[in-house]
Amino acid sequence: MSTQRVKEILSWYASENPGVKANLARLMNAGRLAGTGKFVILPVDQGFEHGPARSFAPNAPGYDPRYHIELALEAGCNAYAAPLGFLEAVAGDCAGDLPLILKLNNSDSLTKTSEPCSAVTASVEDALRLGCAAIGYTIYPGSAERNTQLENLRELILEAKAVGLPTVVWAYPRGGGLSKEGETGLDVVAYAAQIAAQMGAHIIKVKPPTAFLEQPEAKKVYEKFDLPRATLSDRIRHVVQAAFNGRRIVIFSGGEAKSTEAVLAEVKEIAAGGGFGSIMGRNAFQRPKPEALALLRAVMAIHADGC
Amino acid sequence: MSTQRVKEILSWYASENPGVKANLARLMNAGRLAGTGKFVILPVDQGFEHGPARSFAPNAPGYDPRYHIELALEAGCNAYAAPLGFLEAVAGDCAGDLPLILKLNNSDSLTKTSEPCSAVTASVEDALRLGCAAIGYTIYPGSAERNTQLENLRELILEAKAVGLPTVVWAYPRGGGLSKEGETGLDVVAYAAQIAAQMGAHIIKVKPPTAFLEQPEAKKVYEKFDLPRATLSDRIRHVVQAAFNGRRIVIFSGGEAKSTEAVLAEVKEIAAGGGFGSIMGRNAFQRPKPEALALLRAVMAIHADGC
Amino acid sequence: MSTQRVKEILSWYASENPGVKANLARLMNAGRLAGTGKFVILPVDQGFEHGPARSFAPNAPGYDPRYHIELALEAGCNAYAAPLGFLEAVAGDCAGDLPLILKLNNSDSLTKTSEPCSAVTASVEDALRLGCAAIGYTIYPGSAERNTQLENLRELILEAKAVGLPTVVWAYPRGGGLSKEGETGLDVVAYAAQIAAQMGAHIIKVKPPTAFLEQPEAKKVYEKFDLPRATLSDRIRHVVQAAFNGRRIVIFSGGEAKSTEAVLAEVKEIAAGGGFGSIMGRNAFQRPKPEALALLRAVMAIHADGC
Amino acid sequence: MSTQRVKEILSWYASENPGVKANLARLMNAGRLAGTGKFVILPVDQGFEHGPARSFAPNAPGYDPRYHIELALEAGCNAYAAPLGFLEAVAGDCAGDLPLILKLNNSDSLTKTSEPCSAVTASVEDALRLGCAAIGYTIYPGSAERNTQLENLRELILEAKAVGLPTVVWAYPRGGGLSKEGETGLDVVAYAAQIAAQMGAHIIKVKPPTAFLEQPEAKKVYEKFDLPRATLSDRIRHVVQAAFNGRRIVIFSGGEAKSTEAVLAEVKEIAAGGGFGSIMGRNAFQRPKPEALALLRAVMAIHADGC
Amino acid sequence: MSTQRVKEILSWYASENPGVKANLARLMNAGRLAGTGKFVILPVDQGFEHGPARSFAPNAPGYDPRYHIELALEAGCNAYAAPLGFLEAVAGDCAGDLPLILKLNNSDSLTKTSEPCSAVTASVEDALRLGCAAIGYTIYPGSAERNTQLENLRELILEAKAVGLPTVVWAYPRGGGLSKEGETGLDVVAYAAQIAAQMGAHIIKVKPPTAFLEQPEAKKVYEKFDLPRATLSDRIRHVVQAAFNGRRIVIFSGGEAKSTEAVLAEVKEIAAGGGFGSIMGRNAFQRPKPEALALLRAVMAIHADGC
Repeated sequence: MSTQRVKEILSWYASENPGVKANLARLMNAGRLAGTGKFVILPVDQGFEHGPARSFAPNAPGYDPRYHIELALEAGCNAYAAPLGFLEAVAGDCAGDLPLILKLNNSDSLTKTSEPCSAVTASVEDALRLGCAAIGYTIYPGSAERNTQLENLRELILEAKAVGLPTVVWAYPRGGGLSKEGETGLDVVAYAAQIAAQMGAHIIKVKPPTAFLEQPEAKKVYEKFDLPRATLSDRIRHVVQAAFNGRRIVIFSGGEAKSTEAVLAEVKEIAAGGGFGSIMGRNAFQRPKPEALALLRAVMAIHADGC
Repeated sequence: MSTQRVKEILSWYASENPGVKANLARLMNAGRLAGTGKFVILPVDQGFEHGPARSFAPNAPGYDPRYHIELALEAGCNAYAAPLGFLEAVAGDCAGDLPLILKLNNSDSLTKTSEPCSAVTASVEDALRLGCAAIGYTIYPGSAERNTQLENLRELILEAKAVGLPTVVWAYPRGGGLSKEGETGLDVVAYAAQIAAQMGAHIIKVKPPTAFLEQPEAKKVYEKFDLPRATLSDRIRHVVQAAFNGRRIVIFSGGEAKSTEAVLAEVKEIAAGGGFGSIMGRNAFQRPKPEALALLRAVMAIHADGC
Repeated sequence: MSTQRVKEILSWYASENPGVKANLARLMNAGRLAGTGKFVILPVDQGFEHGPARSFAPNAPGYDPRYHIELALEAGCNAYAAPLGFLEAVAGDCAGDLPLILKLNNSDSLTKTSEPCSAVTASVEDALRLGCAAIGYTIYPGSAERNTQLENLRELILEAKAVGLPTVVWAYPRGGGLSKEGETGLDVVAYAAQIAAQMGAHIIKVKPPTAFLEQPEAKKVYEKFDLPRATLSDRIRHVVQAAFNGRRIVIFSGGEAKSTEAVLAEVKEIAAGGGFGSIMGRNAFQRPKPEALALLRAVMAIHADGC
Repeated sequence: MSTQRVKEILSWYASENPGVKANLARLMNAGRLAGTGKFVILPVDQGFEHGPARSFAPNAPGYDPRYHIELALEAGCNAYAAPLGFLEAVAGDCAGDLPLILKLNNSDSLTKTSEPCSAVTASVEDALRLGCAAIGYTIYPGSAERNTQLENLRELILEAKAVGLPTVVWAYPRGGGLSKEGETGLDVVAYAAQIAAQMGAHIIKVKPPTAFLEQPEAKKVYEKFDLPRATLSDRIRHVVQAAFNGRRIVIFSGGEAKSTEAVLAEVKEIAAGGGFGSIMGRNAFQRPKPEALALLRAVMAIHADGC
Repeated sequence: MSTQRVKEILSWYASENPGVKANLARLMNAGRLAGTGKFVILPVDQGFEHGPARSFAPNAPGYDPRYHIELALEAGCNAYAAPLGFLEAVAGDCAGDLPLILKLNNSDSLTKTSEPCSAVTASVEDALRLGCAAIGYTIYPGSAERNTQLENLRELILEAKAVGLPTVVWAYPRGGGLSKEGETGLDVVAYAAQIAAQMGAHIIKVKPPTAFLEQPEAKKVYEKFDLPRATLSDRIRHVVQAAFNGRRIVIFSGGEAKSTEAVLAEVKEIAAGGGFGSIMGRNAFQRPKPEALALLRAVMAIHADGC
C-alpha cells in the first residue's frame, strides 16, 4: 500500500490512466527508498554512449550485464535503466526482481555530430515484453535536430501511456547554439527541465546546474529578479520550480566519476534543494562493488533524510 | 528480489518472455504470502455473475467497489480480481497498491443457457491501461459452446503474452453433457485443469473436487489403477498432478458461503494436497469486515504453513 | 545434407517455398530414421482429447510435460507433436533438441457432440515463437461441421506456408453420417486421406483401415475392380495410392494401447504396404519408459528395413 | 494476338479491368481451340467430391496428380481445373504449361446434407501464387444454404477481379426444394445460368438440361410462349440465351461416364445450340489415356466446326 | 540433442522465445563444429558489395550461386550467409541442407559515400519463406547515417524475434569521423561490438582489431589501466569482453584474401583469445575449391581445438 507521500506525488499525474500511475507507484515502492517519494536509480548506458573500455575498464566486472542489475538490487535502487541489449541479457533471469527502465534511444561517441540526436534503438513493445516499468528517452535541448527528437518523443510517450508505461526523459542541453559552459548553466538546465515537463515527461533527469547563465535575455531576468543561484541547493530548487513548481519528479545525475566526498556533498545540496533523487551511473558502477554499495546507500540515506 | 521458491516456480514458464515472468513474480511477491509461492486472491465478480443483492446484501458495504480492494489490501492478498467496472472504479485511486487481475469475460444469471459461454467484456488493452498484472478468463468445459470459448481464450492469451501479461483461467465444468454432480466430480475437475493448462493458462482456478466420477471411461481407469480419492487432500493432489504434474499454478475456489470451520477445514486439505492457494470471494466479502480479515489471514496462515 | 530419398520426397512438393521444404527436410533429417524418408512421431494430445487420468494414470510420469519430449528424444523420433500447453512447458528448455509440431486444434471428451469439430486452440504465430517445424490440425471427414473445419484449415495452411511451415493433417472420419464400423472402413479412410491431400496437407495421418466398406457407391467400385483389401498391407497400399499415388507422406496411428506383438505386427503391415511411418502415442507413453523405448526402436527398425 | 472472335467475346466484358480480360484471353488462346472462342476444359475434382476409388479405380494412373495435367496438355485443352491439392502437386513442375483454374470450394460425399454447401477450401491468394488463370466456385441453386454460398462467391469474385482473375461458376441446382428430376429440368438449369451470370461469373458451367419443367409458374410461361425444348440443341440455345443472350460464356459438363457415341452425340447438340464448349471430367480421365485423347480431340473437332 | 556447451550458450539468451533459441541451436548444431559452440560461417555478399569480377574472377566457378552453398556444405560450415538473390537461387534445391542467413541490407561500390549506410534489400518475410535460420544486418558505427541504420535494425530485430529468427550483426566501423587506421583500431572495434550487443544482436561479427587506438578519451583509459593489446589474442579477448563479458557470440572475419599461413596464424590468435569462430568469405571462395576446403577445415580444426 502506498504511503501518503507516494499518493501525493501520484495526485500530480491525475490525467494519467491507472496503468501509468501504477508503474510510477512501482518505481516509488521499490528498494530502500520505497514509500519516501525519493529516487536513486542506477543507469548504465555508458557502454553504448561512451564505449566499453571507457565505461567498464575502471571496474572490469561491469563488462558483464549481470553485474549492474545485481548492484542495483543489492544497493536497493528504485530502478535499473539501460539500453535494450543490457536489459535483454538479464530480464529473463531477473524477472520481477526490480523495476526496469528501457532507454529507447541512444547515441555513441564514434559518430561526430555537432547537432546531437540519439537513434531510436528500442520500442514500447520491447519495454512491455521485457516487463519494464517505464521507458526512457534522451533529448538534447539546443540541438538543431530538435524537431526529430521531440516528434519521436511525442509519439513514444503517447504510445507508452496507452499501455500504462510512464516516461523518464534525460534532458541534456547540447548543440551548436550552446557554449560548453552553457550546457550546464542554470537558465539552460531549468529550461531543459521545463521542455521535458511540457513534452509530458513523468520523470525528468537533468544535470546539477552551475551558476552560469547562458542566454542574455534570460540573464536579464535572473538578475532583475535576483533569483538565488549562489549555492547548488538554490539552483536545484530553481530547477524543480521550473518543472511545474515541483509537481513533476526531477532527479539529478552525478556526471563524471569523482571522489566519494564530492558525490555526497553534491547529493546533500540536491536533497536540500528539494531534488527528488539521484540517478548515478559511473560514480556507482566504476567503483569496486563494496565501495559502490556503500556510496549508493549513503546517497539513499541523504535523500531519505529529507523526507 | 525473488525467493528461491519463486524462482523455481518461474522456471516452469521458461517459454515466456520476461514481461510475463515479471508479472507472475509480482503476483507471488505481493501480500502476506509474498515469496512463498502460495496465493490467496480475492475475486469479486459475483455482482455480475449472480446479481447485486445476492452478492452484497449479506454485507452491504460490498456494494461499494472501494470496499473490496481495501479488504484485499488489508488482508494482504496476492491480488484482487474483478470485472472491468469494479476495477475502473478503484484503479485510479489505488494505482500500484496491489496486483489487479482483470476478468475479461463474464456471465450473468438473467440469461438462461443450458450451454454456458461468458461474454467477452473487457480487453487486454483495458488490462494495460488499468495497470493490471494479469488477465482472467472463464471457460466452462463440457459446454457445447466450447469452441467459441476456447478460440476467444487462445487469442486473448496470445495477445496478453505479447505485452507481458499472464493469464488466470477459471475452469468450471458445466453444460448439457454433464450431470450436476459431475460438475465437481474428480475426473471432471482434473480434466478441466488439464484443458486450462493445455490452452496455455499460467494460473488455473478450479473447485475442490468430490470423490464422484462422472465419465464411465474415466471411472474404469480410476478404479483399475486405484487412484486415491477418499480424502479431499488426495483429490487436490490428483488435480495438481493433472495440471502438468504440479508445474502449473493451481488454486482452489471456496465456493458458496459457509461456516468458518468448514472453510478452514477445506483449506487445510487443499494445502495438504499441494494446492497453490485459495481464491475466496463470497466467504470473504459476505462476512463483516473484521470477520473477513480474520478468515483470510487464517487461510493465509494455513497456506504459509505448508511452505 | 539430405539423402537422395529425402530429395525425392521433397521433389513432390515442388510448388512450395524453400521454407516449407526446409522444415519438411528437418522432420526427415531428425532422429534414428534420419535420411530414410520414414517417420516415427510421438504425439501427446490425449491429455486434452481424453482427459489426464485416462491418458497418464497407466504410466504416471507422463503427467509431466518433460517426460514426453525426453521420451521422443531418447527414442530418436522424427518429431514430437502436442497442444500448446505441453509444448510451451518444454520448448524454452529444449529449444532445438528435436522438431516440434504444434497441434492447432483440439477437442475434449467432456463436450458431447455427434458432429465433431475441434476448437482452434493455438495459432501459426505460436508455432513460430515456439520454434516448431510444422503445424498439426485434425479434421473429421463425415462431420456436419465440415465447412467450419475445412475453412479454418485452409486459412491456417495458407498462413503457415507463407512463413515456411508445413502442415500435418490428422484425418479421422467421424460424424452422424458414418457408422462406427465405417469410421475405419477402407473406402472411408482412403477418402479421408484424399480430402487431406486435396486441402494441401503435407503429411497425412490416418488410422490403419479395416476391410469394411461403408459407402454403397464406393463398395460397387471396390468390388467391380476387385481392389485388393484382404490384408492390412493391401489396404495401406490403397490408402497411400489414394493420397496422390504415394506422392504425399501418409503415416498411420497406432490407436488404442495394445500388446507389443500386436503393435509390431501392425507396423510390419504398414511398412509392407508402403506406409511412410507411424505416429504412436498411447502405445508409447502409457508403457513404462524402458518398454516404450524398446517398442519405439523396434517400430523404427521395421520402418528402416523397408528403405 | 487475339482473333476477331476472341476480341468480340472480350468486348462483352467491357467493365472488367485489363487483368481479368487478359486472363480470359489466356484461356481462349490456349490449346487446340485457341482463337476460336470455344472451350474444352478438363476438370478433376471428383477425388474430393466422390472419393478416390470411385474416381480413379477405373483408370488407376489417375490417382497420380501428374496424370491429369499431362492429359489436358496432350489433348490440347484450354485449361485444367482442380482443387488446391491437385494443383499444388503439379503447378511447380508444369508452371506455364497451360492455364490452370483453381476450384475454391469443394464438397465431399462422406458428409450427408440435404442442403448442400461446399466448403471454401482455397483462396484467391492461392490462385495467384499457383499461377492460375481463373478461380472456380460451385453454387447449388435451390439449396437452403444459398446465402452462405452466394455471399462467399460475391466476396471471392470481387477479390479475384481486383487481382485480374476471372471466375468460372459451376451452377448445379440441388437442395430440399427441388425434385431429383428438377435438378436438370430446363427451367431450373436456365435459371441457374442466370443466377451465375447475375453474380458476375465470367464463365458458367451447367449440365445439359432435359425437357422437364420443375416450377409451375415457369412451366406456364414455357407453355404459353411455346418455347422450343424438344431437342437438346433447343434447350442449349435457351440456356445460352438465359445467360445474357449469349454474352456470357456458357459451357456444359458431360456428367457421368458413358459411351463415346453418347458423349459425341451430346456434344454435337451442345455445339449446334450455341454452347461455348465442354468441360469433361470422368468421361475423359476414367478412360485409358489413348481413348481419352481420342475422345477429347473428337469433342474439340465438333466445337471447332461450329466456328 | 544439444551439448552442455550449446545449452550454456543458449542460457545467455534467456529473454528470447523458444523459436529464437531453437534457431541459435540449429546454427550451433550444424556442420563439423556441431555441438562445440564454435562457428565457421561462409558469407558471400562480395558480389553485391565489391562487384562480380573483383569477387569471382579469381575463382570463376564462384559466379554460380550453387558453388558457394556446395562449398559451405562440403566444408561443413555452420551456415551460409548471402544477400537475397544468391539465397533464392539455391534455397529451393538445397532446402534443409544447412542453415542459411539472409543478409537484409547491402551496399555496393558504385555509389561513393563518405557516410555509409547500406540499403535494406530483403525482409524478415523473405527469410521465413526461404527457410533461413537467422537474418544478417550490417551497421557502420561511426557513420553520420547512424540513426537510419540503427532504427532500421531495431525494427528488423524486433520483427525477426517475434517469428523466432535471431540476428547476426556485421559491425564495421566506418565514416567521416574515423581515420582509416581507426576503423580497425582496438578501441573502435570493441566499441562496435558493444553497440551491436546493446542493439540486441545475437551474433556479432567484427574484424580482428589492430593495436591502434583511435579515440583520445579511450586511449587514456587503455593506457591508464594498461589493458593488454600487444598480441592479437589479447585484443580478441578484449573485444569478446566488450560484448557483454563473453555472453554474446562474437565471430571474426578474415578480411582480404591472403596466404594460407597468414589466415591460419590469425585464426589461431582468434581461438586463443576466446573468439567464437570465423566468418570467412574471400579467403575461402576465391581459392580453388580443393584449397578452400582444406583451408576451411584447417580453420575448423583450430576452433575445435579450443573447446
